[in-house]
Amino acid sequence: MASVSDISVSAAINLLSALAFLMAFAFLRLQPINDRVYFPKWYLKGIRASPRSSGPFMKKFVNLDIRMYLKFWTWMPAALRMPQPELIDHAGLDSAVYIRIYLLGLKIFVPIAILAFAVLLPVNWTGKSLEQDKDLTFSNIDKLSISNVPSGSERYWAHLVMAYTFTFWTCYVLYKEYRIVSTMRLHFLASENRRPDQFTVLVRNVPPDPDESVSEHVEHFFCVNHPDHYLSHQVVYNANKLAKLVEKKKSYQNWHTYYQTKYERNPKNKPTTKTGFWGLWGKTVDAIDYYTAEIEKLSEEEATEREKVMSDPKAIIPAAFVSFKSRWGTAVCAQTQQSSNPTIWLTEWAPEPCDIYWDNLAIPYVGLTIRRLLVAVALFFLTFFFMIPIAFVQSMANIEGIEKVLPFLKPIIEAGAIKSIIQGFLPGIVLKIFLILLPSVLMTMSKIEGFTSLSSLDRRSAAKYHLFLLVNVFFGSIITGAAFEQLKTFLNQSPTEIPKTVGVTIPMKATFFITYIMVDGWAGIAAEILRLVPLVMFHLKNAFLVKTEQDREQAMDPGSITFATSEPRIQLYFLLGLVYSVVTPILLPFIIIFFAFAYVVFRHQIINVYDQKYESGATFWPDVHRRIVIALVISQLLLMGLLSTKKASNSTPFLIALPVLTIWFHLFCKGRFESAFVKFSLQDAMVKDTVERATEPNLNLKAYLRDAYIHPVFKCVQLDRPIAVDDEENNPLVATKRSSRRDSKSGSNGNPETSV
Amino acid sequence: MASVSDISVSAAINLLSALAFLMAFAFLRLQPINDRVYFPKWYLKGIRASPRSSGPFMKKFVNLDIRMYLKFWTWMPAALRMPQPELIDHAGLDSAVYIRIYLLGLKIFVPIAILAFAVLLPVNWTGKSLEQDKDLTFSNIDKLSISNVPSGSERYWAHLVMAYTFTFWTCYVLYKEYRIVSTMRLHFLASENRRPDQFTVLVRNVPPDPDESVSEHVEHFFCVNHPDHYLSHQVVYNANKLAKLVEKKKSYQNWHTYYQTKYERNPKNKPTTKTGFWGLWGKTVDAIDYYTAEIEKLSEEEATEREKVMSDPKAIIPAAFVSFKSRWGTAVCAQTQQSSNPTIWLTEWAPEPCDIYWDNLAIPYVGLTIRRLLVAVALFFLTFFFMIPIAFVQSMANIEGIEKVLPFLKPIIEAGAIKSIIQGFLPGIVLKIFLILLPSVLMTMSKIEGFTSLSSLDRRSAAKYHLFLLVNVFFGSIITGAAFEQLKTFLNQSPTEIPKTVGVTIPMKATFFITYIMVDGWAGIAAEILRLVPLVMFHLKNAFLVKTEQDREQAMDPGSITFATSEPRIQLYFLLGLVYSVVTPILLPFIIIFFAFAYVVFRHQIINVYDQKYESGATFWPDVHRRIVIALVISQLLLMGLLSTKKASNSTPFLIALPVLTIWFHLFCKGRFESAFVKFSLQDAMVKDTVERATEPNLNLKAYLRDAYIHPVFKCVQLDRPIAVDDEENNPLVATKRSSRRDSKSGSNGNPETSV
Repeated sequence: MASVSDISVSAAINLLSALAFLMAFAFLRLQPINDRVYFPKWYLKGIRASPRSSGPFMKKFVNLDIRMYLKFWTWMPAALRMPQPELIDHAGLDSAVYIRIYLLGLKIFVPIAILAFAVLLPVNWTGKSLEQDKDLTFSNIDKLSISNVPSGSERYWAHLVMAYTFTFWTCYVLYKEYRIVSTMRLHFLASENRRPDQFTVLVRNVPPDPDESVSEHVEHFFCVNHPDHYLSHQVVYNANKLAKLVEKKKSYQNWHTYYQTKYERNPKNKPTTKTGFWGLWGKTVDAIDYYTAEIEKLSEEEATEREKVMSDPKAIIPAAFVSFKSRWGTAVCAQTQQSSNPTIWLTEWAPEPCDIYWDNLAIPYVGLTIRRLLVAVALFFLTFFFMIPIAFVQSMANIEGIEKVLPFLKPIIEAGAIKSIIQGFLPGIVLKIFLILLPSVLMTMSKIEGFTSLSSLDRRSAAKYHLFLLVNVFFGSIITGAAFEQLKTFLNQSPTEIPKTVGVTIPMKATFFITYIMVDGWAGIAAEILRLVPLVMFHLKNAFLVKTEQDREQAMDPGSITFATSEPRIQLYFLLGLVYSVVTPILLPFIIIFFAFAYVVFRHQIINVYDQKYESGATFWPDVHRRIVIALVISQLLLMGLLSTKKASNSTPFLIALPVLTIWFHLFCKGRFESAFVKFSLQDAMVKDTVERATEPNLNLKAYLRDAYIHPVFKCVQLDRPIAVDDEENNPLVATKRSSRRDSKSGSNGNPETSV
Repeated sequence: MASVSDISVSAAINLLSALAFLMAFAFLRLQPINDRVYFPKWYLKGIRASPRSSGPFMKKFVNLDIRMYLKFWTWMPAALRMPQPELIDHAGLDSAVYIRIYLLGLKIFVPIAILAFAVLLPVNWTGKSLEQDKDLTFSNIDKLSISNVPSGSERYWAHLVMAYTFTFWTCYVLYKEYRIVSTMRLHFLASENRRPDQFTVLVRNVPPDPDESVSEHVEHFFCVNHPDHYLSHQVVYNANKLAKLVEKKKSYQNWHTYYQTKYERNPKNKPTTKTGFWGLWGKTVDAIDYYTAEIEKLSEEEATEREKVMSDPKAIIPAAFVSFKSRWGTAVCAQTQQSSNPTIWLTEWAPEPCDIYWDNLAIPYVGLTIRRLLVAVALFFLTFFFMIPIAFVQSMANIEGIEKVLPFLKPIIEAGAIKSIIQGFLPGIVLKIFLILLPSVLMTMSKIEGFTSLSSLDRRSAAKYHLFLLVNVFFGSIITGAAFEQLKTFLNQSPTEIPKTVGVTIPMKATFFITYIMVDGWAGIAAEILRLVPLVMFHLKNAFLVKTEQDREQAMDPGSITFATSEPRIQLYFLLGLVYSVVTPILLPFIIIFFAFAYVVFRHQIINVYDQKYESGATFWPDVHRRIVIALVISQLLLMGLLSTKKASNSTPFLIALPVLTIWFHLFCKGRFESAFVKFSLQDAMVKDTVERATEPNLNLKAYLRDAYIHPVFKCVQLDRPIAVDDEENNPLVATKRSSRRDSKSGSNGNPETSV
């Protein structure tokens, strides 16, 4: 086990690297040339103009104002200054609620840490169990943990009372936060402008009909079953092949631009390329001519495919976006069951147009259940067999363990600096590399499962990632690390012994997790603010592809909160905090520093950098809440396992009530708040309908909704016009203009003109 | 442990007692005097006339036709003969589906038994592990069980393969049955006549409004939020006190009749009574005069209370029955959320008028969550601390155990007959007495929880009872019996060892459960058909209270299927069958006999006897399905526990997939079928609406619904008229008659005349 001095070295290294990242950030962000990397949000909002457009040449690239370097830390208070309503307005509710997760961590753990330091540390320190037992290797940190309390001691009552106190405090904070977030969401929905998804329901698994096309069938069904509310519908085309063609054409256009630029800069050398794979072999041709011809060919192909998709009835998949005359009718259709067979005519609120994951709309329902089973099995194997490599590396990272197995390595490892570096960095970094590869795999699995919106894909991936982190990082680190130390005894134990083994090993793993928090939490967050990858990418693009100001706009990569990976990682900190709050409270300050630092950094990022792809209105909060409750229950069960091995038979039975109460609390919160995130009440719908009818009696809703839910490849014929929907929110009376525009490309949707 | 000869004696005793019950039944049912006890259903249907009304005097009471006694077994084929559609029509869907549970047992266990006898019995019998180990006491039955296979043997692969086969077969049968039942339910709902609950929604937790009464508030809310569909509403009065008065008056009227009859039969002695408690002390008065006066007094009190409830706004509770113009509007309101606050304006389908549990409508929502927590805690204590007495008695009932502890009793117990009797009867009967007291306690707890319909109360009580049987009868019998045998080793084990201990003990408990099945299953079912308690009660009432043919009608107690107790008991047999199917297959024939016998008996009972209080349309099936799946998972886990102690480490890991697949199967069935039992699709509602509008364009729905949902005490002013709703199902155009009748007691409901 690592000693206090190892921890100190590691803390120093990580603090220094975090500081280095911060200093680099403070320096780089002041350079005008990087302005679009560190403030893209403001550019996208159209508020910030390019600082390079005026002034002397040198000043365009490097900031020479010394005073600004002296105030390099000012971004922190600036990030904290923006009030919440303005933040929601600026960055969206998703982002504003997301950073509240960090705040929630502070709210939970600061009081817990104070209490634990005041009560548990003295109790543990004076336990003196470890000093008597000379066989064990232990460090000073272990003296502050529950390991130092002798078996069967009455001191465990203190831990029991604290476990109850911490649980009640956590639940209280969780309840208050759930209430705040649900109020924020309801307020957000109530004050929202008109959006197409408020009037639209996604219908899936339209049953086949021998006499009617999908479009006719949908129309007839909803005309019959929602006669007073049905407005129109939009069938969904299987345009996946067309989308690929469009993608290919875009890439060719990029190459065309690249060679054009090259030629303009150096008109003497006409650029050439080869026709083979990636331009590496094949016949050498004139690059500009070649790409011009290719683009032309692709345009023709695209037009043919477009024609084919439009006219072929087989290209229409059994799903549709059905629009209603009022939000009330939409709410009714989205929340009720249409057919007595629950596998057909499935309705759900349509996601925002930019939130839709189009590829998955083409999946029939029958396939969905099979896909989900397969993904569940795959996830199981991924989660549980991923442990094998981690187990190997983790056990390597334990110096005492290595020395015992390979004693000849001892002199090398014992050299002070090497030992500290191995102890401080290796376990965390090894884990980190594993984890970087994972999220994209999980997202692919979620896509296979057939979810239809980006937001639900994100939430689903987050659930998978959370399971993975739980099993592999948390339990994996505990069990396999311990397994290496107790290998012989462990193999002879039955599987039912494992929960107890985990509980016993927890105090021993405190130092490992402290290191992990410093590497992943402290240095990792500091690296996040530096944005190294977008910085490099921006400058590369800037050099080769950017010709106009609009190109530069597209070269910016503001990124967004990667909910699918960030949220489960935060949950790991909640879990560590809750598990160790009773066992080894010394771990808590490290977690508090993480939460505080991450809060400031991400607040800065959502204000200045990130541009969310969609706005789901904080739909993810029930997941966040549930996972913290899961962490709470795990911490309680492990404490029970730990205490049962400590012969604290007086106090252990009293712990049984804790998980029961916690789960009841979860059910209570679910009943009280969850519906705000899942359903939309008829009363609210009616209020919005009534207000709208009063303020805009002449609204042509049908025209407004007409091409809101068209596959993006059908929209791209007018690439330069802004997305049709957003710009009309504040100017809804443009129906005539819109319908005249539509006439020029009639047939591009399946709107029946006869609809009621 | 009981030997094979003990089991044979027990089987003989139970078979004989079952036969005796059956013979008694065959004899008693042929006596005309008992006709109303054994065929009440036909009287209630008005099809059967009293056999005592004609013929010679003797023949009215005793059947003298010898030929009929010779054909005493004919009720069995008669019970099986009625085809299912007719059965549904005759006894209702609830009953028809209920007996399908027994049929399901046969479908599951007959093929499993055949396979287990063909494969597992030979494997176990040739295992020869028990013969080598001379220390253990074992019987021939153990030789047929898994105990006879030596530890670490490759023979466990056979058990593993069989566990998979049995699971797949059970799931297949369950799936098919779920599909059949849901089809039956949908067909039943579609072909149902018009009923008030099809148009009515129960609204609970109407929020208080400072300016409006509850009635006005409800009307305004639904006029605003369901403008096109709202028809009328009916507020709910807190008439619990009034109901008590009515109850008391009825009991006084019974006494009055009793004394009246006494006086008429013996006009010389004028009967007297005492005014004190139960007529035991106090002043002696003339009984008829006293009760006449008391009834008059009570009638006045009742009228005052009625007036008070009607006029006092505080007597109106914040709940209402809201009726809609169409089934479509009702389906919409019942399935959607009304307000953004999910704790107010809660809507659900109104239960049938005769299914409503009126007392609970008066409970505000805030209290409900607290009540549920309290009941959950109480249930926990009831379930887990009830074990103490059972543990004591169970351990008494094990002869070898008693002999070891109290060796001086050995000569007495060893006497052949006594030993067999103790072994055969005692454990089962002791358990039975405990269990008889329980269902009413559980029903009270469910009532405290605040459910609003009798059917949901039944289902909820069944869930509680199932938990109780699981913990106390199943696990309790296994663990405490074992605890007595292995007491010393057991106390030294940690709590995590318990699952393993249960698995190990299972084979040893096979004989106990065989006895239990014979006492509770065989003899118990035979006693059910004899109906001893209703028989005695009917003859007592007949002697003292019956004056007219109508009184005799009321003296009949047809009873009904007590779903809350019967269903969990069946589940115990499913659990035993699934657990022992792999471990000790010899138990299966006993279970099959139970299911077959119970199927015939209950089919007879629902045809000839039971009269269901309500018709829920088999809403309970998802519960039945879920509990069988729970039994399946428990059996798999216990098999894992058992095999892990048998050192069958090659095969045990393969069992892990079984519970996972089973739970997935459950989720799949839930998604596929459950909505048919919970929701009512808009399409079906629209179809029924359309048909009705076409066939009865002039229907006055408002008049039809006007007093459907009035508290029964407000109806009882016209006690003799049949329940207002049922008799109009086939004759709906009686609106004028109905409304004129209502005028005579105007003000008895809160129907606002201004409703839209």
